[in-house]
Amino acid sequence: MHLYESIIPSGNVYKIQLLLTHLGINYETTSLDILATPSKTRTESFLKLNPSGQIPVLVLDDGTPLAQSNAIIYYLAENTPYLPSDKLGRHKVLEWLFFEQNSIEPYVSVYKFHTYWGDLGALSEGERNKLKERGQLAIDVMERHLEGREWFVDEVFGVADVALYGYVVHAEVIGYSVGSRVKAWLKRVEGVEGHVPIKKDPTGKCPL
Amino acid sequence: MHLYESIIPSGNVYKIQLLLTHLGINYETTSLDILATPSKTRTESFLKLNPSGQIPVLVLDDGTPLAQSNAIIYYLAENTPYLPSDKLGRHKVLEWLFFEQNSIEPYVSVYKFHTYWGDLGALSEGERNKLKERGQLAIDVMERHLEGREWFVDEVFGVADVALYGYVVHAEVIGYSVGSRVKAWLKRVEGVEGHVPIKKDPTGKCPL
Repeated sequence: MHLYESIIPSGNVYKIQLLLTHLGINYETTSLDILATPSKTRTESFLKLNPSGQIPVLVLDDGTPLAQSNAIIYYLAENTPYLPSDKLGRHKVLEWLFFEQNSIEPYVSVYKFHTYWGDLGALSEGERNKLKERGQLAIDVMERHLEGREWFVDEVFGVADVALYGYVVHAEVIGYSVGSRVKAWLKRVEGVEGHVPIKKDPTGKCPL
Repeated sequence: MHLYESIIPSGNVYKIQLLLTHLGINYETTSLDILATPSKTRTESFLKLNPSGQIPVLVLDDGTPLAQSNAIIYYLAENTPYLPSDKLGRHKVLEWLFFEQNSIEPYVSVYKFHTYWGDLGALSEGERNKLKERGQLAIDVMERHLEGREWFVDEVFGVADVALYGYVVHAEVIGYSVGSRVKAWLKRVEGVEGHVPIKKDPTGKCPL
C-alpha cells in the first residue's frame, strides 16, 4: 500500500498510520507540501487520485485509490477486531466517525492549523470563538459518553477510538478544555500495544 | 419507526425521509423546536436518545435509537438497491457521505440556517466569506466528478445521491454558484419515481 500524506503532521493521515500499524500492514509514503501555493495536492496527477484534492489518499496494491480518512479506516478495519461484526455495532462506529468529521475536525483541526502553520491572528475574534465553542461542545459530548465506559463502542478499542484520537490528542494544548474521562481515554489509547505517536513537525513550527 | 425531526426543515432530516419513502417504509415523526432557548434537543429525555443533542434520530421498532443522518441512511440502505453490495462500492459511498458531512454540511447548512432563521448580519464578513468559499469548493468538486457521470457512485441512484442532495438542492438560491452538471443531477434526483420534496417551513421565514 502507498499512503499520500502531508509534510506537516495531519490528524487525518495519522489515523490511517495508527490503524495500519495495529494491523501490521507495511506501507510506503509520499509526503506532499500542502503549504505550497498552490498546494501540491492540487496537481493534475494528485487530483486523478482524489478529485477533492485532499490528503490522505491510500492506494491499494492493485492501484485503487481510497480517499476520506474515516472511510479509509472503516475499509481497512472490516473483518478485523477493530470493527464490530454486527450491523448495529458497525452503525455505532459510523455514528462516531461522522461525529468526528462533522463536529470535531472542522473546528479542532482548523484551529490547530491556524495555531501552528496558519495565522491565528488573521482570524477575527468571532471566527476564533466559533472554532473554540463548536469544538468544545463536541469534546464535552465525548466526556459525557465516556461515563462508565472505557472505549467508544462495545467496550473494546477500535476504529471509533482511532478516529477520535487523531485530533483530540492535541485539543488541550491548543486551548480546549478536556475533561478527566477523555484524558484517561487518551492514555488508554496510548497504552494499547503497538501504539505509535503522530510524527513530529519537520518544519519546527509545531512543538508537539 | 419513529423519526425525531425539527419544526423547521432540516436537510439532515430530509435525507432520511427521502430514503424511507423510496424504501416504502412507514414512520411516525416528532418535531422538536430547535430554535427554542435552550433547544428542545437538549432535554434529558432527548439526550438519552442522542447524547450529542442533534436531530435527526431514528428509533427502530425495537426501541434502538440511531443518530447521525448519513450513518442512518447507510444503515437503512444496507442490502437494498440503494447501496452497492461490494466492499469497494460501499467505500465509494462512504467517501461521499464523509465528504458531505465534512466539506458541505458545516458550510452550506450553516449559511442556509443564518440566511433564513439565524442572522446573517450577525456573522462577520470574514465568517460569511469562509462559509461561502468552503462550501463552493465542495460544490465545484461535485461538478468535476459528474463529468461523464449521471450518479455519484456506480452510475445508479443511491444513498450517496440522497446525502448530497439534502443541502445542495438549495445551494444556488442562497448564493452559491452551481454548475450545469450538478443542476442536471439535481433534476435527475427529482425525477426518480417516488421522489418527495423537503417540507415547507411552517414558520414562514424560509420561502423555499
